[in-house]
Amino acid sequence: MARAWSLTSRPEGLPSDEHFALIDLPQRDLAEGEVRIANQWLSVDPYMRGRMNDVKSYTPPFALGKPMEGGAIGTVTESRSERFKPGDAVQHFAGWRDEAVLPESQVQPLPELDVDPQAFLGQLGMPGMTAYFGLLEVAQAKEGDTVFVSAAAGAVGSTVVQIAKAKGCHVIGSAGGAEKCAWVQSLGADAVIDYKSGTPVVKALGEVARNGIDVYFDNVGGDHLDAALAHANLRARFAICGMIDVYNSSKPTELRYLARLIGNRIRIQGFIVSDFTDRAADFYRDMGGWLKEDRLKRHETVIDGLDHMPEAFLGLFSGGNTGKMLVKV
Amino acid sequence: MARAWSLTSRPEGLPSDEHFALIDLPQRDLAEGEVRIANQWLSVDPYMRGRMNDVKSYTPPFALGKPMEGGAIGTVTESRSERFKPGDAVQHFAGWRDEAVLPESQVQPLPELDVDPQAFLGQLGMPGMTAYFGLLEVAQAKEGDTVFVSAAAGAVGSTVVQIAKAKGCHVIGSAGGAEKCAWVQSLGADAVIDYKSGTPVVKALGEVARNGIDVYFDNVGGDHLDAALAHANLRARFAICGMIDVYNSSKPTELRYLARLIGNRIRIQGFIVSDFTDRAADFYRDMGGWLKEDRLKRHETVIDGLDHMPEAFLGLFSGGNTGKMLVKV
Repeated sequence: MARAWSLTSRPEGLPSDEHFALIDLPQRDLAEGEVRIANQWLSVDPYMRGRMNDVKSYTPPFALGKPMEGGAIGTVTESRSERFKPGDAVQHFAGWRDEAVLPESQVQPLPELDVDPQAFLGQLGMPGMTAYFGLLEVAQAKEGDTVFVSAAAGAVGSTVVQIAKAKGCHVIGSAGGAEKCAWVQSLGADAVIDYKSGTPVVKALGEVARNGIDVYFDNVGGDHLDAALAHANLRARFAICGMIDVYNSSKPTELRYLARLIGNRIRIQGFIVSDFTDRAADFYRDMGGWLKEDRLKRHETVIDGLDHMPEAFLGLFSGGNTGKMLVKV
Repeated sequence: MARAWSLTSRPEGLPSDEHFALIDLPQRDLAEGEVRIANQWLSVDPYMRGRMNDVKSYTPPFALGKPMEGGAIGTVTESRSERFKPGDAVQHFAGWRDEAVLPESQVQPLPELDVDPQAFLGQLGMPGMTAYFGLLEVAQAKEGDTVFVSAAAGAVGSTVVQIAKAKGCHVIGSAGGAEKCAWVQSLGADAVIDYKSGTPVVKALGEVARNGIDVYFDNVGGDHLDAALAHANLRARFAICGMIDVYNSSKPTELRYLARLIGNRIRIQGFIVSDFTDRAADFYRDMGGWLKEDRLKRHETVIDGLDHMPEAFLGLFSGGNTGKMLVKV
C-alpha cells in the first residue's frame, strides 16, 4: 500500500510529530496519459513551513488530511503516457509519499547532466536555481564584490558560495558550528562566521568584512540581516531568499541598523525562484559548465525511510543538515 | 555683528537647547569672486539630526564650535562676483546664520518660477525633489497604483501626496492629529490615517487599503514601515527617504511583517536626493507645469528669528510643523 504524509493540524511555532500523520493512498488503475512513479528521493525545504499556515501566500497552504507535496525524484513503474516508459528517471512535485500517480504534464525527465539523480532536488534543482538567480539576477553580484551569505552550509547557501567564487567574488559565509564552517571553507569561502560561537554576528562580520559587503544573500533574517545592514557598502544589494529565523517564531525582527539603508542607498529585494523558471536553461548551461570544470561540490544529509520524513523536515530548523536535506525512500 | 548657530556637543537621543550656541561670525572684507548675502529664510530638515552624530555618512558631521550648515535663501548685499549684484535673490547652503560670505561657485540664483522665494527651501527645493524622484524614480509609482506615504503633512510627504495625485495614483497618507489629517485630505489624498488616534497603524492602514498598497514612501520607519509590509501587494516598491522614528532613538526597529517581502517580492530601496541633482531640470519642468495648473498647494510653519532656530529644528521631531518648517531671519 502506498503511503503519504499529511498535516493533521496547523502548527503554531515549531511543528512537532503530532502535526503529521502517515495516511494510506488508495490504489487505482492509471487513466490515459498518466504514469505511476516509485519515489526514491524526497525533498524537505524550509519554505514548506509557510505552507503549513493557513494564509494566502505564493504557494497555497497544505490541505489538512491530504497528502503533502514537495519535490521528488523517482522511477516510472507503469505508464499510459507516450512520453514515459517504465524505468525512466523523472522528477515531479508529488513528494512526501512513496508512490505518485500523475498526469504526464506534471512529470519531467531529469536534465541531461552527469550527476546523481538526487542532485536535481538540491544543487541542480530548485535550491540551486534559487542560489543562481538570487545571487546573479536579484542581487546582481559581479566580479570583485564582497558577498555575504547566511546559512552557507545549507542547500541554497552552499551553492551561493560556489557560484559567487566562480564569478570572482570575495565570499563570506555564516554557518553554525565548527564542522559546518570547515565545510563552507572547503567550498572556497574566503571567510566563515560561526554564528554559534557566542560572538554577535554583527561583530564577527565586521572582523572579516573590513571593506564592507556589496551583496547579502539572506536565508536567515534577524541578526544576520541586521549585521549585513551594519556593514553594507554604498549601493549594496540584498537578495532576500528566506528568513528561517522567523518561520517558527511570532517574535518581531529587531533591526538596529535599518536606517543605514538610506545613506548607503541599499536595495532589499525579496524573491521566489519560480519567477525565473522560464530561464532555467541559463542555469543548467552555467551549472553544467561548472560541473565539468569540477567547481561544484555538494553534500547531502540523508534521512532513511519515509517514516522519518517529519524528522528530516524539523531538522532543517535545528541545523540538522549540512548541504541538502533529503529523505531516501 | 553676524551670528551663526553652532553645535557645542554631540547629542545622544533628542537634542536640547544645551547642544546649541549662537556664535559671532568675524566680519571681513570680500575676496575676489565672493558675495555677501543677508539671509531671509533658513531651513531646518530632519536629516540634519544625522549630521550631529560623529559617524561617517553621506554628509559629514557638523564640526563642533563651527557654524552649522543648511539650506538658505537670501539677498546679495555686496558682491565681488560678475555673476551677482546687490539685490539678487539667491539660494545657498550656508544656513543656520543671518549673514553668509561665500565664493560665487557656492551661490545659485533662484529658479525662474512664480512662487515665494521660501518655496525653494521646501516644495520647489530639496524636499520637493526628494518627493519627486523618490516617488517616480525610486518607487516607480505609476497611474493606478495605491501609494501610502507617511508623515504626509510634512514638507516631503505633502509634496508626495500631490505629485502622486497628479500622476493618477490612489493616495493614502498618515499624519498626526485631526488638523494635519484634514490638511492632507485637502491636498487630494483619498484617505488619511491619524497615527495619533490610538489605532495601530497596521490596523488603520488595513481599513483604508482594502486592495493593498503598491508603493510606500517612507519618512518614518518603525510601525509605519511594518504596516506597509503587512499590506504590500505583489512587487510593491518602497522608497525609504527617512526614518524620523529612529533618528533620536537607540531602540531597534521591530518588524513583524518583514518576511512578507519574500512571497510578495517587495523591493525596499534607500535613497538620497543628491543622487538626482543632475536631473533637476525634469523636476522644475514638471513642478512648473503643476504650479501653473494650480495643482500644488503648500503650507509653511514659520518660526520667527534666528534666536529660535534650535526650537524650530526640535519641532520637527515633535510634530510641530505642518508643511515645511522654516526660520525667518
